[in-house]
Amino acid sequence: MSGNRAVAYKGPGVVEVIDTPYPEFELKDGPGVNPANVGRKVPHGAILRTVATNICGSDQHMVRGRTTAPVGLVLGHEITGEVVEVGPDVEFIQVGDIVSVPFNIACGRCRNCKEGKTGICLNVNPDRPGSAYGYVDMGGWVGGQAEYVLVPYADWNLLRFPDRDQALEKILDLTMLSDIFPTGFHGAVTAGAGVGSTVYVAGAGPVGLAAAAGAQLLGAAVVIVGDLNEDRLAQARSFGCETVNVGEGSVPDQLEQLLGVPEVDAAVDAVGFEARSEGHGAHAKEAPATVLNSLMGVTAAGGAIGIPGLYVTGDPGAVDDAAKVGSLSISLGTGWAKSLSFTTGQCPVMRYNRQLMMAILHDKVHIAAAVNAKAISLEDAPRGYAEFDAGAATKYVLNPNGYIAA
Amino acid sequence: MSGNRAVAYKGPGVVEVIDTPYPEFELKDGPGVNPANVGRKVPHGAILRTVATNICGSDQHMVRGRTTAPVGLVLGHEITGEVVEVGPDVEFIQVGDIVSVPFNIACGRCRNCKEGKTGICLNVNPDRPGSAYGYVDMGGWVGGQAEYVLVPYADWNLLRFPDRDQALEKILDLTMLSDIFPTGFHGAVTAGAGVGSTVYVAGAGPVGLAAAAGAQLLGAAVVIVGDLNEDRLAQARSFGCETVNVGEGSVPDQLEQLLGVPEVDAAVDAVGFEARSEGHGAHAKEAPATVLNSLMGVTAAGGAIGIPGLYVTGDPGAVDDAAKVGSLSISLGTGWAKSLSFTTGQCPVMRYNRQLMMAILHDKVHIAAAVNAKAISLEDAPRGYAEFDAGAATKYVLNPNGYIAA
Amino acid sequence: MSGNRAVAYKGPGVVEVIDTPYPEFELKDGPGVNPANVGRKVPHGAILRTVATNICGSDQHMVRGRTTAPVGLVLGHEITGEVVEVGPDVEFIQVGDIVSVPFNIACGRCRNCKEGKTGICLNVNPDRPGSAYGYVDMGGWVGGQAEYVLVPYADWNLLRFPDRDQALEKILDLTMLSDIFPTGFHGAVTAGAGVGSTVYVAGAGPVGLAAAAGAQLLGAAVVIVGDLNEDRLAQARSFGCETVNVGEGSVPDQLEQLLGVPEVDAAVDAVGFEARSEGHGAHAKEAPATVLNSLMGVTAAGGAIGIPGLYVTGDPGAVDDAAKVGSLSISLGTGWAKSLSFTTGQCPVMRYNRQLMMAILHDKVHIAAAVNAKAISLEDAPRGYAEFDAGAATKYVLNPNGYIAA
Amino acid sequence: MSGNRAVAYKGPGVVEVIDTPYPEFELKDGPGVNPANVGRKVPHGAILRTVATNICGSDQHMVRGRTTAPVGLVLGHEITGEVVEVGPDVEFIQVGDIVSVPFNIACGRCRNCKEGKTGICLNVNPDRPGSAYGYVDMGGWVGGQAEYVLVPYADWNLLRFPDRDQALEKILDLTMLSDIFPTGFHGAVTAGAGVGSTVYVAGAGPVGLAAAAGAQLLGAAVVIVGDLNEDRLAQARSFGCETVNVGEGSVPDQLEQLLGVPEVDAAVDAVGFEARSEGHGAHAKEAPATVLNSLMGVTAAGGAIGIPGLYVTGDPGAVDDAAKVGSLSISLGTGWAKSLSFTTGQCPVMRYNRQLMMAILHDKVHIAAAVNAKAISLEDAPRGYAEFDAGAATKYVLNPNGYIAA
Repeated sequence: MSGNRAVAYKGPGVVEVIDTPYPEFELKDGPGVNPANVGRKVPHGAILRTVATNICGSDQHMVRGRTTAPVGLVLGHEITGEVVEVGPDVEFIQVGDIVSVPFNIACGRCRNCKEGKTGICLNVNPDRPGSAYGYVDMGGWVGGQAEYVLVPYADWNLLRFPDRDQALEKILDLTMLSDIFPTGFHGAVTAGAGVGSTVYVAGAGPVGLAAAAGAQLLGAAVVIVGDLNEDRLAQARSFGCETVNVGEGSVPDQLEQLLGVPEVDAAVDAVGFEARSEGHGAHAKEAPATVLNSLMGVTAAGGAIGIPGLYVTGDPGAVDDAAKVGSLSISLGTGWAKSLSFTTGQCPVMRYNRQLMMAILHDKVHIAAAVNAKAISLEDAPRGYAEFDAGAATKYVLNPNGYIAA
Repeated sequence: MSGNRAVAYKGPGVVEVIDTPYPEFELKDGPGVNPANVGRKVPHGAILRTVATNICGSDQHMVRGRTTAPVGLVLGHEITGEVVEVGPDVEFIQVGDIVSVPFNIACGRCRNCKEGKTGICLNVNPDRPGSAYGYVDMGGWVGGQAEYVLVPYADWNLLRFPDRDQALEKILDLTMLSDIFPTGFHGAVTAGAGVGSTVYVAGAGPVGLAAAAGAQLLGAAVVIVGDLNEDRLAQARSFGCETVNVGEGSVPDQLEQLLGVPEVDAAVDAVGFEARSEGHGAHAKEAPATVLNSLMGVTAAGGAIGIPGLYVTGDPGAVDDAAKVGSLSISLGTGWAKSLSFTTGQCPVMRYNRQLMMAILHDKVHIAAAVNAKAISLEDAPRGYAEFDAGAATKYVLNPNGYIAA
Repeated sequence: MSGNRAVAYKGPGVVEVIDTPYPEFELKDGPGVNPANVGRKVPHGAILRTVATNICGSDQHMVRGRTTAPVGLVLGHEITGEVVEVGPDVEFIQVGDIVSVPFNIACGRCRNCKEGKTGICLNVNPDRPGSAYGYVDMGGWVGGQAEYVLVPYADWNLLRFPDRDQALEKILDLTMLSDIFPTGFHGAVTAGAGVGSTVYVAGAGPVGLAAAAGAQLLGAAVVIVGDLNEDRLAQARSFGCETVNVGEGSVPDQLEQLLGVPEVDAAVDAVGFEARSEGHGAHAKEAPATVLNSLMGVTAAGGAIGIPGLYVTGDPGAVDDAAKVGSLSISLGTGWAKSLSFTTGQCPVMRYNRQLMMAILHDKVHIAAAVNAKAISLEDAPRGYAEFDAGAATKYVLNPNGYIAA
Repeated sequence: MSGNRAVAYKGPGVVEVIDTPYPEFELKDGPGVNPANVGRKVPHGAILRTVATNICGSDQHMVRGRTTAPVGLVLGHEITGEVVEVGPDVEFIQVGDIVSVPFNIACGRCRNCKEGKTGICLNVNPDRPGSAYGYVDMGGWVGGQAEYVLVPYADWNLLRFPDRDQALEKILDLTMLSDIFPTGFHGAVTAGAGVGSTVYVAGAGPVGLAAAAGAQLLGAAVVIVGDLNEDRLAQARSFGCETVNVGEGSVPDQLEQLLGVPEVDAAVDAVGFEARSEGHGAHAKEAPATVLNSLMGVTAAGGAIGIPGLYVTGDPGAVDDAAKVGSLSISLGTGWAKSLSFTTGQCPVMRYNRQLMMAILHDKVHIAAAVNAKAISLEDAPRGYAEFDAGAATKYVLNPNGYIAA
């Protein structure tokens, strides 16, 4: 039990599976660990044997070299596991529990946590509110694309599944509770998607597909997903969404064909700052504000835009000087004339994960199928990263300990 | 009764008081009237003898020549009046009622009105959702800086004051219900100002001061107003606000001195697109995104920004090409990292005016004093426009029919 | 066009189809018309040729002689129709429109309507806030179980279906928008039913089934319906609900078998004051508070109870003196200890009908199948009333003008 | 430091100050301690030296012998203190902090706590959701009317005041944050009190006065307090409330005189099950449903009633058999006809205490003056209980360690 294997960032475009230490109830120094967090005791933590851990689109920002992530950083913030050890302060979580880990680390003791704003906990990241496992500038908590991982404040953070066998049977669905399903759902909720609404989701990657599935669960009358990638659009159609290929005609025109009007009630930006304006793959030009500006055009007056897609404060690889410091050219006047509202930021996973778990366990949503979840071994992680980056319409789930049946 | 006098826009920098026709229950052709609205019957309308009608900061955008407002446009969307005639379809409003007119014209019969979104009524402006009296591109409804004015859909739009004598006694307060008090209040509400909150209002013009008074009414613990204009800041201090002169040191530093932290819970942008970045008066440089970017810096993570300040889709007089088409350079990444949300658009006055009337009538707020209301004659309107544009810390109230006692 | 046929209450247990006048744009005197409403002009009204009009459980209260409804009262408040005439004040509704009529009549001009509280409009019923067609003590507006009916304030009240052919094709679903679908949905919403929640609906009559379908549309994980009537429970199972027969064991025990816990997150009282405590049909004893007290027992702490089921202020036929004046013995302490909240009253149909129409038109819900809608001729109404009163698991839809295909 | 003095219940009508053990980080056996809680380790706890601890109206229910409280029970759930020791799991609260203790004990780790429903925490009371210090059937956590008290889950439960000197200066205000100010405020919030609203508060005891002050802070236009006790009504008038003596004419009539209408927008029941129907003092007859039924009469249609007043599941001393088991005769039909909603239960103090602290610290409310707070020594507690029970218009604050200056 003294070893561990994990996926690490080794430089732009390179991830490797490496040997790393088995976790202890202390945050040790290492790549990306905030100095103020080094040596932090974690008696409130639990050590998990990973059941499932997914590759996320936001990991790709680091792997593409678009961030200051240090070489050696262990990746992974989408984690489901079995509790194998608990610290002395853990009172309710027990060894043997199968649990989902919200990607945002939260203390459960600060003002923001008390208000349910666990995405901006004040006590876990010395640099700013908000934290995550295995992510640059997020405090240095070790990533979970690994055999074993430490989760602090276990009683607060962990969501226990009610039945082990049922959990393992539905594990490809339940593993989406750690991030993308709540994240997409948060996008849909903050966009105002509700019963009978029409919803447009920009981006058919896993978060966009999760937003679409979330909008359906919220009772939307029509959910339309837009992307340039036909495989991903086919994936959206597989669970009842309409689609628009944004490279093939204007979005308003395509919406009008589907809805009779060129607008929707609610819109979700599931793309973020690496948006591309036209063409496919390498031919597309990066245009960081294009999605948001497009959404202002197609959201009906009085509507809202949920923005789970990531926008960054600094992006050295950006197309222009303004974007390099996170300034984007936004058609704010268009939004103002239409009385739009906007919600940004990390999803506070704990606000949604229990209810979404219930929806999964009672077969009200099939999120694994919606995002085309595919389990691969931990050692195959580099291949998963590469295929995902190439645009595969697949959500890669790592299976480090063999819990997921073939 | 067949005559009328009104304030008209006569070209950049020029307003005049002119003779105009007495209103009929029909929208006649004239400067700025949308062709599709010409000849529209208004049997549901009421004709008011104006009791009070205010000069608004948004009128100044037109008068400065920053819009496509046509010469001859009768101005004025802040109207309080006495009903002197009602159309045949009016059932509940009666001749003799003293009433407040929400600046947004609404039909009371479309989807948006039924949902309380009267700022984006679908039936009154042929060009787009939303309308107003005496305003460019808002449908062409004749302005109310006049002796008499027509109000359509009178049963829906008008707020009747319960007692005539009481209304006339508090008329300088009640006249603020037509626009700036609800507009500022909406800014405070959508910023999340509530009991015990700390609130920063950018802009100490009338809307900013109304936002500050609104935040106080909502129970804010501390309200801080920022501006470059010392007279306006003194006005803010007169009713218990703290102030920061944004020309004298960084806003975060000044907030930290006042609050012990460099951030507030809630922020209101009461400036809009004509924001200036530094220096005073003519020396200040226009910088249309500076206020919004500054607010993202000083709003605590998880907070909200209410944006009653106007942002436009086109501004031919703007400082750069992007701003000319309404595109502003926004530090979206900063907002996203802090999980901020944003609410834009015209205030739906009807959502708030009855409750704010009650607060005025029961002496819970003194909005006339807060904004330094000053009654002048209709014929003095050009002087009022000029003084207000020069930065007077005064809200000018026109008194066309002598209702307001000296 | 000068005649009309309508269903009238003719005394306890008796309804008949009678000849009545074709509507005019004035409320004429007649059985149940409030004197203060006699002669009221309705230039804002529309005359509809009825497309579908349903028998409602609340009609049965009158027909059973449990109210002071006068003999001769024309019944019917669930109305869908084709507009055949409009009054001079109607601006947007047009002849030929196929429209749904919210059962609550509202003026669209009073404070409550402006706040969206159309169930308690202040201007349509001289006795109290709130009104309805064809109902005792509700102002005297003539019922719509008829060939033709007058709808006042047509621009405000009517919901226009976007496409005539589509509307007629889905008419058995869309006819539920006038009352029971929004009413049941309101019960689910005010109970706090949402994504992933567990919901218990007491009563498997049409409103209960609509509440169950509504809870599903809101994303509930499990919806459980309780009743004594096995046919109605079978109906609930037909669209995926779980059921408990409340005559066969305690409700908490049955919930525990289904859920693993004896409680639900949210509960709906779709029964009201004619609740029965045990046994079936005639053998059951009336116990007006039994449902509400039972729901307090099975709602988890912190939950809410939506109460669309009718409770009355006077019930001369009640089982005891207290109930005769509307006083029921409520276990308030149980509710208080669990921090429950309660929402009562008529559903404000306009708050929900557009969004539920969208859900129907886009095949997200099949409410006609859920409530087992069955079209019968107007002349067959007496048989429909009798079968429904006898407990048929059927929602009877009258088809006065042959719009509904066989 | 090994001793402690505390107020204990010694039988109906009798409280005494007794010697008790100094707290340890374990819940020891004793009067009223739930057997399942005996021996529970509290490494997450803090020991406080009490700064202020108040006598509450709900303590009186026990002292009057209206509950099953065991002799010897140490009383007191309104606690402010200085941290003198912390358990090993406490991470953020520090020795020397001056802190407010919410009266509801909460774990910060269960589903309800994560949802902010700290009044119904699932992990602290083995009998049912929800707990409190020094209260019958609430788990057995030792009361805080003592020199020292143990607070479990200290990082979660405690609200730290930002500055020690400022806190001690305003201690008579801040001590109300542990219960009655949030409790009254919760009543006002759940009644829908907001800017411009009219609010009626039944009961001018400390909770009623706090509800009234809370309604003012929320921006209410008029706050009216009703009671039979003229001294308490005078207290209400002292901070700007209107009052009605419910023994001197009907409440609707008195409201109409004050407001012009016999109804209010929002109502608060700050009395609960020991309501009396008429007459003063001993002559008044207990009538447990009279307040709630009266409030349904005077709340306008569409309004809400907040019910912070306690209703119990069993009351052996009640006036009739139904009330003995917590069943009250409620005019539910009246409420239903008016579409009222109702919120019951313990206030979740943590939802409000930080924001109310801010309002106090910034002088936006003077709650100590509103409730006429009066500090007395711990040894004087029996006198305080007696005077309060006799109807003194005073909130008694015990001062066990001399922190409160004379």
